[in-house]
Amino acid sequence: MVKTIEYMDGVVRMIDQTRLPSETVFVDCKTIEDVGEAIRGMVIRGAPAIGVAAAMGISLGANAIDAADYNTFMAQLEQQCAKLGQARPTAVNLKWAIDRMLTVTKAHSHLSVSDIKQRLKQEAMAIYTEDIATNEKMGGFGQSLIEDNSTILTHCNAGALATAGFGTALGVVRAAVNAGKNVRVLANETRPFLQGARLTAWELKEDNIPVKLITDNMCGHFMRKQEIDVVVVGADRIAANGDVANKIGTYMVAVMARQHGIPFYVAAPVSTLDLTLASGDAIPIEERSAEEVVTLNKQRIAPEGVDASHPAFDVTPNEFVTAIITERGIARPPYTESLKALAGAS
Amino acid sequence: MVKTIEYMDGVVRMIDQTRLPSETVFVDCKTIEDVGEAIRGMVIRGAPAIGVAAAMGISLGANAIDAADYNTFMAQLEQQCAKLGQARPTAVNLKWAIDRMLTVTKAHSHLSVSDIKQRLKQEAMAIYTEDIATNEKMGGFGQSLIEDNSTILTHCNAGALATAGFGTALGVVRAAVNAGKNVRVLANETRPFLQGARLTAWELKEDNIPVKLITDNMCGHFMRKQEIDVVVVGADRIAANGDVANKIGTYMVAVMARQHGIPFYVAAPVSTLDLTLASGDAIPIEERSAEEVVTLNKQRIAPEGVDASHPAFDVTPNEFVTAIITERGIARPPYTESLKALAGAS
Repeated sequence: MVKTIEYMDGVVRMIDQTRLPSETVFVDCKTIEDVGEAIRGMVIRGAPAIGVAAAMGISLGANAIDAADYNTFMAQLEQQCAKLGQARPTAVNLKWAIDRMLTVTKAHSHLSVSDIKQRLKQEAMAIYTEDIATNEKMGGFGQSLIEDNSTILTHCNAGALATAGFGTALGVVRAAVNAGKNVRVLANETRPFLQGARLTAWELKEDNIPVKLITDNMCGHFMRKQEIDVVVVGADRIAANGDVANKIGTYMVAVMARQHGIPFYVAAPVSTLDLTLASGDAIPIEERSAEEVVTLNKQRIAPEGVDASHPAFDVTPNEFVTAIITERGIARPPYTESLKALAGAS
Repeated sequence: MVKTIEYMDGVVRMIDQTRLPSETVFVDCKTIEDVGEAIRGMVIRGAPAIGVAAAMGISLGANAIDAADYNTFMAQLEQQCAKLGQARPTAVNLKWAIDRMLTVTKAHSHLSVSDIKQRLKQEAMAIYTEDIATNEKMGGFGQSLIEDNSTILTHCNAGALATAGFGTALGVVRAAVNAGKNVRVLANETRPFLQGARLTAWELKEDNIPVKLITDNMCGHFMRKQEIDVVVVGADRIAANGDVANKIGTYMVAVMARQHGIPFYVAAPVSTLDLTLASGDAIPIEERSAEEVVTLNKQRIAPEGVDASHPAFDVTPNEFVTAIITERGIARPPYTESLKALAGAS
């Protein structure tokens, strides 16, 4: 399995997710601006991967600052982080990574600028390493919810490609496979960006996990035919009450799952929780370009001049969420209590 | 507006719906086999248009039969019709048109073969003309259900292109516009064949009716944001109890509509009713090639070798259907009674 992201000497290397699966090419980011552009353009995507990329980008940005004292250094770093923070609005992991990197900077204000830069690089690498460990722990909890011989529906890509490795929702699938369970995945293609068709199908196939691709509008039909046992998706931001922002289309999957009595699980690290928001209504929903709806690979699929909408995420109200799987355990309703308890644990 | 289908001298000409909107090209069918191939390959699609095409194709087939007596002629015609009837399994209008053409043949068994051929051509033209009149009547009934300043969600293409003209679901939209109502359409793109993006967006734009395109997985989000007032779709077959087979994805739209208290209307001619089937469970669901899922507009979107499913239709249980709009009036639950009454009327 190729690495989603790597921090090499002065370079953050990412597999270009806009070009998979037809081409396996890499993008080398040499500046924090390069990383911001890669996040904005979805070269790298998925909430945890965005967090890791941001941390590595901040390290690149820190290294480029020419300052002799802490205050000058910090002022410039905060400026860079403020700009990076605007790359994509919905996934809270971007903000989470920025906050963590700035907190580390502040905690080491007594060190030389050169030492702080070293410390920030270590922190970025720690975020990377922790993310994989987090996903493995999450997988361990999550796979306990997956019965043998299950067909698991997933939406978008919450896999190795959406994280530093192993994946959140697909981490649960991998952990179930590692536990000897016979499972298969039904993957929603996930229009318009086709993360399911291009990324989920690709990484599961690479790992020899059985996967079948469907269009997003088919999953209700297969639920009605009792061909789906369980749904597992990732998340971009989870409010204090358990409302979940995730890739556009997730809400419809959740409603269909409840209609058919199928468990709907969300797998996400604690870094995806945003307990400052009482409900999902306060989560900003990114509106992306309509061009991404009316074209594919720059080829038009709709008549010229036709208007289109492109909300990139939606919010699934907590009442549709059976449980939220984190690296600290499984939260169940009422989420206001269970998520608070998990966030406070360590 | 270009014509969906025309019967000229010895030729059935269809606009090639696999190539719209990028190219406006026509396919000339000279034999019943050509027409069967055009139906199978979705050059023409939409239940009523399939019925019209079948009738015209049968006339072409009849004209090509070299027989001196009725019995020889009828035997060959029935053989041709049996083959044509296998072109697509779900839309009952194909069977309906075949039955009607064979009934006319039988009713004129006393005529010369040459006169029967003439009569069959007249019948095909009558089916064509009646289809447009049917849609206009249906539109009249249907538009009474549409309030001024409404946003109407539709799925697939149940428009002029799916019929001889005017459309079923889009006929309701056109009738609302003609009645002076200010309405706009939100069109699901309708993967995998993209009838919404390619055909609905195109024909509404041609008619200057406001249309906005969304991916199929977005409509739940817009319902939750109260940006959709009413759903109107077509149908490929309606069972005696009001269960509706229609383009894959319709079921999910119907469940979402009920979840949000939005009326879900089906517009279809009486020829789409199949009262021989007690429920939708008995409707055959066409399974089309997985190639149509792993490619988008003929470009490959999924990794080579990935498996995919492609049920082309789904069944929406009657409990999700607010009303069924026909050319004879509006049927409401319980459908077993209301549809039977409409089918018996004239």
